[in-house]
Formats: sequence, structure tokens, C-alpha cells
Amino acid sequence: MTHETVKFVLDEDSIPTHWVNLMADLPADPPPPPPLHPGTKQPAGPDDLSPIFPMALILQEVSPEPEIEIPEQVRDIYRMWRPTPLYRAHRLEKALDTPAHIYYKYEGGSPPGSHKPNTAVAQAYENQQAGIKKLTTETGAGQWGSALAFACRLFGLECEVFMVGVSYDQKPYRRSMMAVWGATVHRSPSNETEAGRSQQSHPTGSLGIAISEAVEVAAQNQDTNYSLGSVLNHVLLHQTVIGQEALAQMEMAGEEPDVVIGCVGGGSNFGGLAFPFVRRALRTQAKTRFVAAEPAACPTLTKGIYAYDFGDTVGLTPLMPMYTLGHDFVPPPVHAGGLRYHGDSPLLCGLVKQGLVEARAYRQNETFEAAVRFARSEGIIPAPEPAHAIKAVIDEARAAKEAGEPTTILFGLCGHGHFDLSAYDAYLNNDLEDPEFSEADMQAALEHLPEAPALS
Amino acid sequence: MTHETVKFVLDEDSIPTHWVNLMADLPADPPPPPPLHPGTKQPAGPDDLSPIFPMALILQEVSPEPEIEIPEQVRDIYRMWRPTPLYRAHRLEKALDTPAHIYYKYEGGSPPGSHKPNTAVAQAYENQQAGIKKLTTETGAGQWGSALAFACRLFGLECEVFMVGVSYDQKPYRRSMMAVWGATVHRSPSNETEAGRSQQSHPTGSLGIAISEAVEVAAQNQDTNYSLGSVLNHVLLHQTVIGQEALAQMEMAGEEPDVVIGCVGGGSNFGGLAFPFVRRALRTQAKTRFVAAEPAACPTLTKGIYAYDFGDTVGLTPLMPMYTLGHDFVPPPVHAGGLRYHGDSPLLCGLVKQGLVEARAYRQNETFEAAVRFARSEGIIPAPEPAHAIKAVIDEARAAKEAGEPTTILFGLCGHGHFDLSAYDAYLNNDLEDPEFSEADMQAALEHLPEAPALS
Repeated sequence: MTHETVKFVLDEDSIPTHWVNLMADLPADPPPPPPLHPGTKQPAGPDDLSPIFPMALILQEVSPEPEIEIPEQVRDIYRMWRPTPLYRAHRLEKALDTPAHIYYKYEGGSPPGSHKPNTAVAQAYENQQAGIKKLTTETGAGQWGSALAFACRLFGLECEVFMVGVSYDQKPYRRSMMAVWGATVHRSPSNETEAGRSQQSHPTGSLGIAISEAVEVAAQNQDTNYSLGSVLNHVLLHQTVIGQEALAQMEMAGEEPDVVIGCVGGGSNFGGLAFPFVRRALRTQAKTRFVAAEPAACPTLTKGIYAYDFGDTVGLTPLMPMYTLGHDFVPPPVHAGGLRYHGDSPLLCGLVKQGLVEARAYRQNETFEAAVRFARSEGIIPAPEPAHAIKAVIDEARAAKEAGEPTTILFGLCGHGHFDLSAYDAYLNNDLEDPEFSEADMQAALEHLPEAPALS
Repeated sequence: MTHETVKFVLDEDSIPTHWVNLMADLPADPPPPPPLHPGTKQPAGPDDLSPIFPMALILQEVSPEPEIEIPEQVRDIYRMWRPTPLYRAHRLEKALDTPAHIYYKYEGGSPPGSHKPNTAVAQAYENQQAGIKKLTTETGAGQWGSALAFACRLFGLECEVFMVGVSYDQKPYRRSMMAVWGATVHRSPSNETEAGRSQQSHPTGSLGIAISEAVEVAAQNQDTNYSLGSVLNHVLLHQTVIGQEALAQMEMAGEEPDVVIGCVGGGSNFGGLAFPFVRRALRTQAKTRFVAAEPAACPTLTKGIYAYDFGDTVGLTPLMPMYTLGHDFVPPPVHAGGLRYHGDSPLLCGLVKQGLVEARAYRQNETFEAAVRFARSEGIIPAPEPAHAIKAVIDEARAAKEAGEPTTILFGLCGHGHFDLSAYDAYLNNDLEDPEFSEADMQAALEHLPEAPALS
């Protein structure tokens, strides 16, 4: 008989001691475009960010160092669920009858069930060290909000979460999970903030609106800071523990990935897995391909324009150089709530712009089809977000079969779908919406882009 | 700083190669009372069980061997999630300010989220080897049904699940999970069976009723067998991988448990963790205590009588020697659906009868209080079933504090509570029912006990 379960497990000493800062690998000339102050349109400096972030995280945000040491207390908490396993998807390969070798790094074993606590713990730690008493944040599907609720509980911080309305309604148990860990959760747009009150005409909400609400509360309270679950450099930085472990595990497997695949909302899952491989590819001229999978309902990388835009809907954040659908674009209510974001990490957008990362967009139903196929062969039920990556993986595996090439694929299975089963129900009952992206809505939103220098 | 996360991890080679059969350690004289044929009241032999079980499992059920080899294909699938981690609950100890050392073995990392696949996989394998095409079963909260749906999918078997009505309504996502893996799920009592139609006056259902339905379907179809998630010797046998790993991990920790604690519905989680330690205690005269925690709403071990009774409500199964509340007792609808069973494993009941295992019963609200305290210190949100064990752990830890004794406690955290968050919501809103056990209902049910030899 053949053994089909192949899992690569590292010992605790292999939890990375440093985060990988890909900024250090990018060309210094021309320098990457800086974020701009939303009022003056001048490059935003550390002081512009200090009302809502602790200095330690701001320094990580702008650091030129190639590696940044992980504080021992953060690494200690990582041990709760790290190192995470890397699996060979033998059963999926067999189901697809493909010569491709498929590997996945599974982050769903953390208590909140996704990769998000890798950065939530680091952020809660630095805020506690800085004397902060409370963190505010936004959340889409709730993966991020529950990760921050969990991390705040461990460090004795209060936590206040603005949850995107449609997800609040679709995923009530994610809200309950945050409550179990002691967080306060508001449906966004809420009546708690000016920003929320100004957006009551968009009852489904969006990540952009929820960010505005959370930033507003943090900016107005001295002992309260804001915490973002993706997009920013320091957030992607914290997630690079994933890719570093995966590098070591692929070495155990004796293979090199030809293609690395992840889903993208704000970019933290993708960056966390891919950036250590991107660094290696840049340094060794390896021909690794990188594929970012996003929802066709919110196709930032594939249909957005590359421009300075706000990170939030109301316009409280610095202007960031990124692909954007316009900061007041409200994406259709797909279940992959973590991917309903108008922008993306500037660092990742730069790589897409340079052609180092390829982006693809998928419709909701085809991603659920891929997710059910995965669950029925590999056993794990994926969240709707990584279902986008799985769709891309299946496409790559089919291409490998057609070409007769034994492609090696690595992808990030960033979370489980235990709180998304109503969406699976709808899919299995042929009752899942497949909302379309509205080019007209995007064009309208792009008319509201802030005035700022053009990006080349 | 103190490192607080202490996790003991075994490598894959440490997955047990054999199951521990505690039967071999029990006194041969007098022999344990045998199960009886429901019609003739004569000892039930292998032939009586063969219409619904494959011979390989029947032989495990009655085996006198101290160890039984785990088939390589089963062990291969165990590798998906085994070995499971053992944690030291440092943060809970600190929250309780106790000198006790608390350890827990966590089984929630399996794809279905509990210990149940340890036996589901073994049962699906043996049925597939025997040429069976379909398995039927009952499920309470859905942990068992989803585990069997998962295992059947891996071995290409159909799976039909009768889910206890109240849990079907309380935990809709567990049903969805089974559907994702391709199983058919009926709300029990259903209209699919004679047994179900006869019990329409009990719309909340019970495990006893659901078992009757599943057994009826299996008995009537040649290529269909029945699969039970607890109670029987072979089921507890399969779960002993838990305790064997825990023995090795406690050795890594350099400690011996003074007390081993588990929740009990049918006994498989408890037996799986405890039996390897019971064997050691019997062989070495170690003074380990064993505590079985059950719901006060269904207090089989603490208030039941020790007698021959049916395993199901309608009376299709052999008569088993066990503590029972009466096979037609319908327990109040507590959220710990996996513990709503009128009987218990005969093997475990024998140990309770002999005084080797102590039983305690807890009310629903106090178990959720314990669960929230655990989640807020250790991060993992427990299922309502192991919340009963956690309540017992907290009581032991408080007793240790009062006595000033550094007691070492080991307990089984057999599953996560991701599908039970509506119950947590109710608890946090002071809205959780705390149903009482009805002594009158039990007395009425006990009047329907089958005629059979008395047990001493």
C-alpha cells in the first residue's frame, strides 16, 4: 500500500527568531513611493502615525533592516500553535489525476483559526509595552477581529471591533467568538462614530468603512491605539514566519516550489507565505512564479488602477501607493469577507507592478467548487478566502497535466471554514449568489481619488 | 520573563502502533457480565452482531489480547492530525492561583474537531475491507456524525446520519459540515424509519432514539452496516491512542498525574485518555485517581442504576450491563449533546462499580462558566462536553490550593467549541437554560427496563 498522508513537522526550536523584511531587497533607486500625509500630501513620517500606533511598530513599518528580531514574549505565544504543519496534498493530486506535486501550509490550527494571530500577538505586545490600554480595529469575515480579541486577552488589553455589516449578519459565531475572548463588537457602519453615521446609506458595510470607524475611535482617545490586520509593511512582516517555516519544510520535502500561490485581500497572508520565497528568488535568480488570487467581485490587483489612495473610506489614513478600486468602492457581499478591500498592500502592489507577482480573479461559485473538492479529498474545510488560492492551484495542476509537467505547487491554506458553513450550505443547494463586479461603481469611486502625485 | 507556553510534541513515529485493550487487565474471575441477546437473553455472540458490524470489529469487541495492532492504513490517516499536543495550562494555573500543575491533551486539531475520528477512521476502514458500501449512525452534537462523514469520505463509503433533533436545531453548521463531506443527515426522530415514526412524541430526540433509527436502516440493508461512536469496547479501544501519547508526553514533562479527568457521555473520550493510565495504575499499584465528569441533566454514572438495559430507545441492540437511566429516558436539551445518553460504556461502568473511577455531575451554567474561564486564559474555546471536565479540573485545582498541595492534574480537551457558540452567546447574555434532571422521568423509564438477570 502507499502511504498517502505526508506532513512535514518542525520542532519548536524552528519557529523563526526573526521576521523577514522584504523592503531591504527592493531596489533603492528609484526608492519606493512613500505614504503621504492625507492633508499636506507630504511624505508621512513616524510622527504622523504616532497618534494611533506605538513607535515600535512604526519603526518596523519603515525599517530598512533585512531582518527584525521577534520579541521573546511573542515567540513564546507563537508556540501555542507554531510551527504549523506543511502537508503534501496527495489525495487532491490523485483526485485531479495530475503530475503536479501540491503542498500546502496550514495556518488554521491557531486558536482563532487563521494566520491572523501571527501579527495580532506582535501588535498587542508592542502596544502593551507602550502602555496602551485598548485597541480598536475593523474586521471583515471576523478572522482578524477574533485574532486581535484573542491577542488582547493574552496581554490584558481591551479590544473594540467594528465588524463589516454583511459579515456580522452572515457569520454570527465569529462575533460570539470575539465576545468569548472579551471583546466588544459593533456592526459597521455603526452609530458609535462620525464615520459610521456618515455611511448609513451602505448598510452592508465594507472594510474601508470599518477602518474609518476604528481609526476615529483610536485617534480620539489617548490610551487607545488602532490595529490593522493587513496592508501595512509591519503586518506583512509579522506574517513572514509562515514562509520561513515553509522554506524549511519544502527543504525537508526535498522540493522547490515552481509556483507559490496565496489569496489576497490586503496581502498579509500572501506576503507572509511568499515574501521569504520572493527574497530567495531575487537573491538566487530562481525562476519561482508567484500567483495572487483575488475575488472577481473585488478585483483590486487585476482591475484597479495604480495610484495614491486612502486606506479607509472616509479618508482618515495616509495616502498609500497601491492598486485601488477607489476608497469609497463598496464591494458586493461575497462570503470571502477578508478579501472585500478596495486596496492592497503597497509592498505587494509594487511587486505586481514590477511583474514579479501575477494576479488572477475568481468568481464566488468556482471558488466554493474548489473548496468542496479540497475538503472531500484532503479533509480540511477551507475558509472562503483561501478557496481562491485553491481554485488557482487546481488550474495550475490541470495545466501541469495538459503539459505533462511535474510542476511543484505551494499554497497557503490560511484558515478553516468552520464559521462559513452557511455559505457552503448555499453552494451545495445551488443557492449561492455569484455577484458581479460593477465597473461603473469602480469608475464612480475612482472619480473620488484624492489629488496626489501620479505613480509610474 | 517567564515563558508561559509549554507544549509537549511527539514526532510521527510516536503515534502508537497498537491499541490498548483494558479488558485483558480486568479480573477473569468473576468474568465481566456479557452482553445479552435482546430476544433470548442469552449471551450475545459474534453472530448476533454480524448483521450490523464487520467481523474484524466484532473480534476487537470481544478480544482478550492486551494489545491490538493498528492497521497501517488507519495509522497513515492518523498522521493527518496525530500525534496531538499536550499542553501545560500555565495561564489557567495563574488565573486560579493554584499550586496544582494542570495538563491537557488537545484533540480538537483533527479535521472534524474532536477525538471522534480516532475510531471513525478505524471503523470505516474495517467496513470497507469487508466490502460494505454504506454506514449509518446517530449523532448528538454532531462531533461523531461529522467524524464518520469525514472517515467515510476517505474510504469511499456512503454515510447516513440520524442527528438528535435538538442538536440539529441548535448546531446547524455541524449538519452543514457533514454535507460538505458528502453525508446525508436526517433530523431524528425522522420519518425514514419505524423507530423514528414511533417516537414522534419526543421531538427533541435523544441519542437512544437516533441509535434505533440507524440500527434499523443497517439491519435491513445487506451492504449497509451501523457504526457507533462510543460505548462499545472496540470504540474505547480505538481511542486509547490518546492516552498512550499522553503517557509519553507526561514523561517528557517529568510528571505523573495524581488525577486524570475526562467528560463522559458514552465513555469513549474518557476511556481513550484514561485506560492506558488505568492499566499502568493496575500494574504498578500507582495511586492515580480517575474522575468522570457528566451533566447533572443526564447523570448516568451518579444517579443511574447498574443493570442490563438496551443501548437504544426502541430496544434493537443487545442488553448491556451498565449504569442506566432507562433506555427511554429523554434527557433535557443541554448543549453538551454528546453527553445526552441514558447509558455508558459497560467497561467504564465496571470500573465505576469497582470504585476505580469516581463520577461527578455538573450543571450546564457552571460548565460554561468554566469553559469561558479556560478560553480566556488558554485561548482555546472548548466544546460544551469537555467543559464538564474543565469544571472538575477547576474544582481539583481549588482543592489543591486549599490543601496547599501541588497536585498534578491531566484532563482531556476532546474538542473545540466552534459549532457551539450560540450556547456561549446565551451564557454570556445570562440567558442559558440550566435544565434540571427529572428523577420522576428516570423512575418512569426504569420501569421499562427489560427483564434480565440482576447484576451484582
